Amino acid sequence: MSTTQNSLTPVTVIGLGAMGRALAGALLDAGRPTTVWNRSPGKGDDLVARGAVEAASAEDAVRAGELIIVCVVDHDASDAILEPLGEALRGRVLVNVTSDIPERSRQAAAWAASYGIGYLDGAVMVPTPLVGSPDALLFYAGSRKAYERHESTLKALGGRAAFVGTDAGLAAVYDLALLDFFYGSISGLVHAYALATADGVKAADIAPYLDSIVQILPPIAQYTAENIDAGSYPGQEAGLAMMASGVSHILHAARARGLDVSQLESVKAVADRAIARGHGSDDWASTVEAVRSAS
Amino acid sequence: MSTTQNSLTPVTVIGLGAMGRALAGALLDAGRPTTVWNRSPGKGDDLVARGAVEAASAEDAVRAGELIIVCVVDHDASDAILEPLGEALRGRVLVNVTSDIPERSRQAAAWAASYGIGYLDGAVMVPTPLVGSPDALLFYAGSRKAYERHESTLKALGGRAAFVGTDAGLAAVYDLALLDFFYGSISGLVHAYALATADGVKAADIAPYLDSIVQILPPIAQYTAENIDAGSYPGQEAGLAMMASGVSHILHAARARGLDVSQLESVKAVADRAIARGHGSDDWASTVEAVRSAS
Repeated sequence: MSTTQNSLTPVTVIGLGAMGRALAGALLDAGRPTTVWNRSPGKGDDLVARGAVEAASAEDAVRAGELIIVCVVDHDASDAILEPLGEALRGRVLVNVTSDIPERSRQAAAWAASYGIGYLDGAVMVPTPLVGSPDALLFYAGSRKAYERHESTLKALGGRAAFVGTDAGLAAVYDLALLDFFYGSISGLVHAYALATADGVKAADIAPYLDSIVQILPPIAQYTAENIDAGSYPGQEAGLAMMASGVSHILHAARARGLDVSQLESVKAVADRAIARGHGSDDWASTVEAVRSAS
Repeated sequence: MSTTQNSLTPVTVIGLGAMGRALAGALLDAGRPTTVWNRSPGKGDDLVARGAVEAASAEDAVRAGELIIVCVVDHDASDAILEPLGEALRGRVLVNVTSDIPERSRQAAAWAASYGIGYLDGAVMVPTPLVGSPDALLFYAGSRKAYERHESTLKALGGRAAFVGTDAGLAAVYDLALLDFFYGSISGLVHAYALATADGVKAADIAPYLDSIVQILPPIAQYTAENIDAGSYPGQEAGLAMMASGVSHILHAARARGLDVSQLESVKAVADRAIARGHGSDDWASTVEAVRSAS
């Protein structure tokens, strides 16, 4: 199929939770003939009203599409739906945007290869209201040929589509890495508010000053990445030992206020292990060595 | 002393580590008559070359200033220097920008009050190269009268000076809260890179996508603060239970790669405790309840 026909690529969306419905909606907005299916029926009514076809079975849904997008709760759920459909999927392209660990994506890719299915693993990095927007970031990994053939359709799901490699696990790797940073950040955020409110400060009084931290994160992310890739962590003004002492102050204050300090204790323990390995004057990036040597 | 004379306020800086030297430099740049002192001599030579006077003793230094700024390693160190100087400090304003826990700031304020010393506790939130710049954020807390009298001089240390309350512990509270968020974020960042590089991805390949997380932190910080202050955490699209399941995926993948997972385990444990308290459909902000009930 030539790229000029891409605007007519028939697409199927399996799984009509909030994200699956958003993906189907973006495809309809982009004019793709869209078939939908959900294990429990009735979830696609408003999509049908917008022009989608609701298939009577998962197999009918698969056979209606050239590109099949699966978005369910995890890979156990997608395996349960897809495994009986290997032959129906043969020669088609399967895009699994179900969140799970990279190992499961690789297993799914191997299974798809055994049936001659073009496989892409995907990760949607934006909340549903942003799906389909030009800035929406999605990661894809797996078959480069499948990605290139369907790039215009895949970009209809989010303009900032990124093909990150032919290892089908890599979309999940990128996804989990971003979420790892995200959960560390918002856990620190909530803990910061717990600390401040323990002394009678309103969280809303702290909030306006957090931009001073947010602003320095992009340059830190950049030079930390460079240092980690180089395996060399030249200390900035404040070396790891001085920063660990700063963590101790937070830990001390949080403990005195009866707050949970488990996250701070683990941050401190990792820093202390890196210091013990000789990184006391190095940058915080050197803690990666301690993260890699769990003990 | 009237405000019109502020430009001539004689200032003393005690403690000439990297930060103390930056503070003294900013005062010299702003034209304040500046006296400096450090326990081990010779640290002020370049400041003297720029017009500072190096005092022969801590007491001489205190007597030379109307505003005395102390910047040493912690409050044990500042107490050791200041406690013999109560009488010399009487009637002057003492600004202690030494980092420590709020309790120590409150003790210092009580001690200062007993000698009739105007006390301000301060926290410098920028690295030394930014000290004295218009955007540099510093928190001050304690005597509002002292702050107002010396505001122009204090703003010479950083244009974004904020007086956060008459409780002298509050500058440290704001400081520790911002650092709590900071260390959670950069620990998550390094862990994200450890996770990605374990699968052969370069940290520099992940870095360009981290802006998608950084961008959402300010609105999250804002509504999380509002929810915490209200004690009500209405769930967004992804409730706490779904997010905790996302943390489990990261945890599972990190453990499979032999990485330290102590921080993720504590993030997960806090989320699970909040879910057990009935917040499974609530926003992540509801984890504050679990943070406050360490167990």
